[in-house]
Amino acid sequence: MLKEIVGGVCAPQGFRANGVHCGIRKNKIKKDLALIVADKRCAAAGVYTTNLVKGAPILVTQKNLADGHARAVIVNSGNANTCNEGGVEIAEGMCRLVEEYTGVPAGDVIVASTGVIGQKLSLDPIASGMKSLASGLGGAAEHSGAAAEAIMTTDTVKKEIAFEFELGGKTCRIGAICKGVGMICPNMATLLMFVTTDAAISPAMLARALKEDVKDSLNMLSVDRDTSTNDTFCAMASGLAGNPEIVAEGEDYDKFRAALHAVTSAMCRKLARDGEGATKLIECRVKGAKTAEDARIAAKAVINSSLLKAAMFGCDANWGRVLCALGYSGANLDVDRIAVCFRSAAGELPVCEKGRGIDFSEELAKKVLSEETVYIDIDLNDGGFGATAWGCDLTYDYVKINGDYRT
Amino acid sequence: MLKEIVGGVCAPQGFRANGVHCGIRKNKIKKDLALIVADKRCAAAGVYTTNLVKGAPILVTQKNLADGHARAVIVNSGNANTCNEGGVEIAEGMCRLVEEYTGVPAGDVIVASTGVIGQKLSLDPIASGMKSLASGLGGAAEHSGAAAEAIMTTDTVKKEIAFEFELGGKTCRIGAICKGVGMICPNMATLLMFVTTDAAISPAMLARALKEDVKDSLNMLSVDRDTSTNDTFCAMASGLAGNPEIVAEGEDYDKFRAALHAVTSAMCRKLARDGEGATKLIECRVKGAKTAEDARIAAKAVINSSLLKAAMFGCDANWGRVLCALGYSGANLDVDRIAVCFRSAAGELPVCEKGRGIDFSEELAKKVLSEETVYIDIDLNDGGFGATAWGCDLTYDYVKINGDYRT
Repeated sequence: MLKEIVGGVCAPQGFRANGVHCGIRKNKIKKDLALIVADKRCAAAGVYTTNLVKGAPILVTQKNLADGHARAVIVNSGNANTCNEGGVEIAEGMCRLVEEYTGVPAGDVIVASTGVIGQKLSLDPIASGMKSLASGLGGAAEHSGAAAEAIMTTDTVKKEIAFEFELGGKTCRIGAICKGVGMICPNMATLLMFVTTDAAISPAMLARALKEDVKDSLNMLSVDRDTSTNDTFCAMASGLAGNPEIVAEGEDYDKFRAALHAVTSAMCRKLARDGEGATKLIECRVKGAKTAEDARIAAKAVINSSLLKAAMFGCDANWGRVLCALGYSGANLDVDRIAVCFRSAAGELPVCEKGRGIDFSEELAKKVLSEETVYIDIDLNDGGFGATAWGCDLTYDYVKINGDYRT
Repeated sequence: MLKEIVGGVCAPQGFRANGVHCGIRKNKIKKDLALIVADKRCAAAGVYTTNLVKGAPILVTQKNLADGHARAVIVNSGNANTCNEGGVEIAEGMCRLVEEYTGVPAGDVIVASTGVIGQKLSLDPIASGMKSLASGLGGAAEHSGAAAEAIMTTDTVKKEIAFEFELGGKTCRIGAICKGVGMICPNMATLLMFVTTDAAISPAMLARALKEDVKDSLNMLSVDRDTSTNDTFCAMASGLAGNPEIVAEGEDYDKFRAALHAVTSAMCRKLARDGEGATKLIECRVKGAKTAEDARIAAKAVINSSLLKAAMFGCDANWGRVLCALGYSGANLDVDRIAVCFRSAAGELPVCEKGRGIDFSEELAKKVLSEETVYIDIDLNDGGFGATAWGCDLTYDYVKINGDYRT
C-alpha cells in the first residue's frame, strides 16, 4: 500500500524548497539556510523538546502555529539561537524576511535553528542569502535535497524520504527532511524534522497524529541521551491530493498514521545510523512486555547504555550489559524470563534464555556484530506488548567530534 | 576534628585483611581474592544496587546481614557471579570457605563478586587460594592495600582511606577500601565499598547512617550512567574504641556521620578520577536550588552528559551543554537565573549569567580546563539548597576499554 518515492519534502503536491550557503558558517561551501514554501496555506502542527532550556525559534514557531496553519519553514544551521540575547527578535526577523521575499505572512512561518548554543545569531548573513534562497525555490527532488543539506550540522549524509499512499481513492504523498546526530535523546519531540503532505487533514488531527507517532518513533531514538534544546518536528498538509479531509478517527486517519510512521521510523533509522561517530545502527526490538510503556522503557535503556554501545563498537557479544540495562531501566519485568538474541544479515546469535547465559560461538558472534545493522531481539516472556528503539555504537569518533565541536 | 591516617580498613582496631591471586583471572599476577576479618562480631549494615538484575552474592549478603551483625568480608574479582547457573550456591560456598579457614561462622560473612556478568564462577581457585589468604591476614597498612588491590577490575589505582575522630572522649577510627570505575551510576548503593570502624554503634544506627550518607556520596557519582548489578556498600563496626555505643540520633551520631561522609566523599573523588579512560575529575557543585533533591538531580545531570564529558576531555568551555543538561534534568529551575562558572587550580572562568552567555577568554578557558580536577560551579539563584556530584571526562580510552572488556 505504501510505496517509497523520490523527492523528499517536494514529493507531495504544492511544495517547493531550497537551501543555500548564506555565511552563518565559516565553512564557505556548506549550505546553512533552508526554506520550504507551500503554494497554499496548510494545516500545520508541531511537537517540541521538553528541555526547559528552549531555543528562541521554538517560542516563535509555537506562537505562529497556535492557529493550526502555516505556509513556510525557514531553518538555519551553524547557530542554535539559544541562550543568547535577542534570540526571539532574531527568529521573528527570519519570519519577516520570508514574508519580504516570498509573500508568505510572517505569522505563517515555522522557524528553526540548529548549531552551537549560546552565541549571538546575526540576521545579516540570512538577509543577504534570502534573494538566492527564494529565487531558487523549486519542486524537484534536488530542491528538497538542497534544503536537507542546509539543515545538517555534524550529520554526514542528508536525510530525506517520501512515500505514496492512498486515501479515499486519491493518491497522496508524504515527504520529509531531517537532521540531528548528536544531542539526540528526544523526549516528546526531536531534533529537526519537517514533514510535508498533500493529504487533506485538519490541524487538530494532524497535531494528534504527530503527538501519537513520536511515542513510537522519535522518542525511541537516542544517540547520546542528551535531549536537545531545539528539537522541533513540524508537519504541513496542503490538501492538494483532493482526498476527503480527515477530521476524525477512522480508517483514513489510520492510513495517514501508517504513512506518517513509515516516514518517521525510516528517519529514525537514518538518524541513528548517522549518529555522531557511529559505525553501525543498533535496533532493539522488545516483545513480551506487560505494557507498551514497559516495552518502550526497556528498549530505550538498552540502546542508551554506554557500555553496551562500546561493546557493539568492539563487536563483543557482551549480553550481560543488555541484562544490566534492562535491570536498571525501571521497566516492570521478571529477570528469570528474559531471552536475548543478537541478529544481523550474517545470522542469529541467541545468547541468553531465562535470564541465564547460553553457550555461543565467539566466531559467529564477531560475524553477526560486524554488520552495519545489528538487531538486539529481547523477549521478556511476560506479556503481549512490544517496542522498537534505535541507537548506534559509541566510538572513538564520537569523542573526537564532541571534544572540539565548538572551537 | 577529622584527621586522615594510613591503614585503610586495617586502621580501626580489631580488623585484619589480605588479598591474593588465586587464579580466577587468567592474568597470573593480579590479585583476585580479598578477605577482611574482624577480631570480634561487629554491628554491620549494607546498601545494594537497585538493579533488578542482582548478583547472587548480594542475595547471600542480605540474608547474612539480616540480624545486623557480621565478622568477615570475602570478595573476588574477575567474575561477577551474576546471571549464571548456581550463583547463590557458589556465594554460599565462599562463606563456608571463610568459616573453614578462619572460624568465622558462614552466616557472619559478607560476600561480593565483581567482573564479567554471565559466566560460571568455579569455587576451585577460591578454595585453593584460601590457605595463603587466611594465613597472610594482618593488621598493617600493607594488608589493607593487598585487599584493596584484590578487588580491582579495570581500576588503575587501588582505593583506600582512613580517618581518626573522637566520640565521647575516645579516639575512633574509620577506614575503607573500594573499587569500581565502569558500570558506575549508583542508585541507593554503589560498586564495592567496605568500611570498617572501631566506633561502637548499633546495627540500626549504622544501617541508617549508610542509607542517609549514600544520598550525598555514592549516589552522586557516575562514570557512565550504567547502574551495576553488583553494587554493594557494607560497613562493620567493632566497638573496640570504647566509646558509648551510638543507639540514637544526637551529637555522637552526627560526628560519626561526618566521619563516614569524609570517607565516602573522598572515595567518590578517587573513583571518579579513576573512571574508565578518564583524564580528569569533574566535580559539579550546585547551589541556590529550591530543594535538596532539585540540587542533586541538576548536579548529576551535568556530570552524566556525554556531550559535556567529551567537551571536558577536549578542554572546550562548551557551557551550552551544561545548560542543556540542566534543562532536561527534571529539576525545578528557572533558566533565566542560572549562573555557571568553570574553575580549577588555574583560575576561575565565569561563562554564563542569568541563562545567557558572557564573554570569556578562550586562552584562559583552555588553561582552566586542562587541569586534573575541574569544578563546575552552578548557582540556580532560586533557593537555599545545594549538592555536589562527581564524574569524569569521556575519552577514547573509555571506548577502547569497553570495546573489548570481555574477550
